[in-house]
Amino acid sequence: MAGTNTALLADLKMDFPAELQRHVRRIERGIDVYLPPGDTRPRRLHEAMRYSLQAGGKRLRPVLLLGAAELFGASDDSALPAAIAIECVHTYSLIHDYLPCMDNDDLRRGRPTAHKAFDEATALLAGDALLTQAFALLATNYTANPALAGALCRELADAAGSRRLIGGQMEDLLAEKKSDATKEELEFIHLNKTAAMIEAALVMGGIIGGADNAGIDTLRRTGRHLGLAFQIIDDVLDATADSATLGKTAGKDAKSGKTTYVRLHGLASSRRIAAEHTQAARAALDLLPGKREFLHALIESMAGRSK
Amino acid sequence: MAGTNTALLADLKMDFPAELQRHVRRIERGIDVYLPPGDTRPRRLHEAMRYSLQAGGKRLRPVLLLGAAELFGASDDSALPAAIAIECVHTYSLIHDYLPCMDNDDLRRGRPTAHKAFDEATALLAGDALLTQAFALLATNYTANPALAGALCRELADAAGSRRLIGGQMEDLLAEKKSDATKEELEFIHLNKTAAMIEAALVMGGIIGGADNAGIDTLRRTGRHLGLAFQIIDDVLDATADSATLGKTAGKDAKSGKTTYVRLHGLASSRRIAAEHTQAARAALDLLPGKREFLHALIESMAGRSK
Repeated sequence: MAGTNTALLADLKMDFPAELQRHVRRIERGIDVYLPPGDTRPRRLHEAMRYSLQAGGKRLRPVLLLGAAELFGASDDSALPAAIAIECVHTYSLIHDYLPCMDNDDLRRGRPTAHKAFDEATALLAGDALLTQAFALLATNYTANPALAGALCRELADAAGSRRLIGGQMEDLLAEKKSDATKEELEFIHLNKTAAMIEAALVMGGIIGGADNAGIDTLRRTGRHLGLAFQIIDDVLDATADSATLGKTAGKDAKSGKTTYVRLHGLASSRRIAAEHTQAARAALDLLPGKREFLHALIESMAGRSK
Repeated sequence: MAGTNTALLADLKMDFPAELQRHVRRIERGIDVYLPPGDTRPRRLHEAMRYSLQAGGKRLRPVLLLGAAELFGASDDSALPAAIAIECVHTYSLIHDYLPCMDNDDLRRGRPTAHKAFDEATALLAGDALLTQAFALLATNYTANPALAGALCRELADAAGSRRLIGGQMEDLLAEKKSDATKEELEFIHLNKTAAMIEAALVMGGIIGGADNAGIDTLRRTGRHLGLAFQIIDDVLDATADSATLGKTAGKDAKSGKTTYVRLHGLASSRRIAAEHTQAARAALDLLPGKREFLHALIESMAGRSK
């Protein structure tokens, strides 16, 4: 698998790591610019927001957003505030997900989670503030084209709302309490807890780039398959990799008795289904215009990841 | 004071209770229409959202929004989604504020709070979902006028953000831990934890009604004074009323050792300062066009309230 990826990347005649690095650097700078300064009042709250958002990570969603915008000819500059907005929403969802009343995780990437580094109340409020900041960024930075601002807010609110991201988290919680979740329930969780924001990232990039309805639909389909593949691979890695490689506790799902994709479908089938979704994402992407090399390479790197 | 209010209300030649009732009924119906149905998936999450939003209450913020919109000639229909949006944000902030890691309140208006009626995780997610739903409502229901949708999202995101509503909650939490908060710190808390959303309610109504910049500024000033008066009266009632009248535990602030307005300024001064803010709100309101009777009567009822 790794061999195929390497050959494919070489074929693409594009320096993917350098291009990825360029996007990630823009995002890191954007986080600094588009968040309230850490020394503004209330300082503790703004420090907690920055602490959580500056914890590193793949920056997958904002990179996908920038990549999709570029596909449709939008400049990085115009897409950056939306890219930071989607990372704010992703980070808020992690902060709240790590709280003691949810998954109760003390570490992320070897670093104390917000409620450990600060306290529960500060973490709760920092999450709330990041979610709110996401909409502030969209409503403030796209005023030159009010229809664009509205469309971005709508897309993000839908993807992050009670039927999708939060709905997925809710059903995930309910599923954790029972060891007999069905395939259908797990599909709902993956589709909403994970795929919703990956879809939204691509779609928001497309909206900024001026994609037509057909383009938006194709981006949504690409994101859906990519998101499902991503989450299944996550479950496979949880079952097979060690904690040091993952940067988080491996085997946690199995230990907790939680129903996982791997338990329901088996390891081989899970890998095959993930590969099918990756292939479907590739095929959908090929229907889109523009230079698709970067997004293709990103899909490969996601399929071949080991953490 | 109560006598003055009654005389004033009679003078206004408007049936304030009936008018208020009419607005509240529209809001209650709007909540039912603009929230996801309780039987849609995930049911538990949507039930918790509805349980919290349907807990009754004064509906002060949405009523102010409808009143301000009416002042500028907007129809109730056009203002209703925004009115529900602001009530969603208010309710989310209460749900999170009542959580064990924050104020740890089990009862509101004699009814179990969300984390008691459901559980902590569900309450956390229901709060998140209501905040997100507020932006979804604004982004979805004002598409005919995209600039309007954007302006409403911006106003709400600013008022609910880390420098205002959430910032006020953060400093309130920090102040609870010490008994020597300063007048300036308390002012920051009142201005942001309470006045921000009351300002936003009036301003959003004005935006929907097409108010010009001067009108918006005046609405903001009205809301600021009204919000400050409202919060000081809250502190006075906490120190003087009994729990049965308040519908929540009275004297809680004093018992917890928290610095309150009454402790810093004394009871008589607090009452005087509240009255000054009420008067300033009245004066600002008088600079606005349209039929101001309803908002005047609302200000009086807020100043004279006993709970």
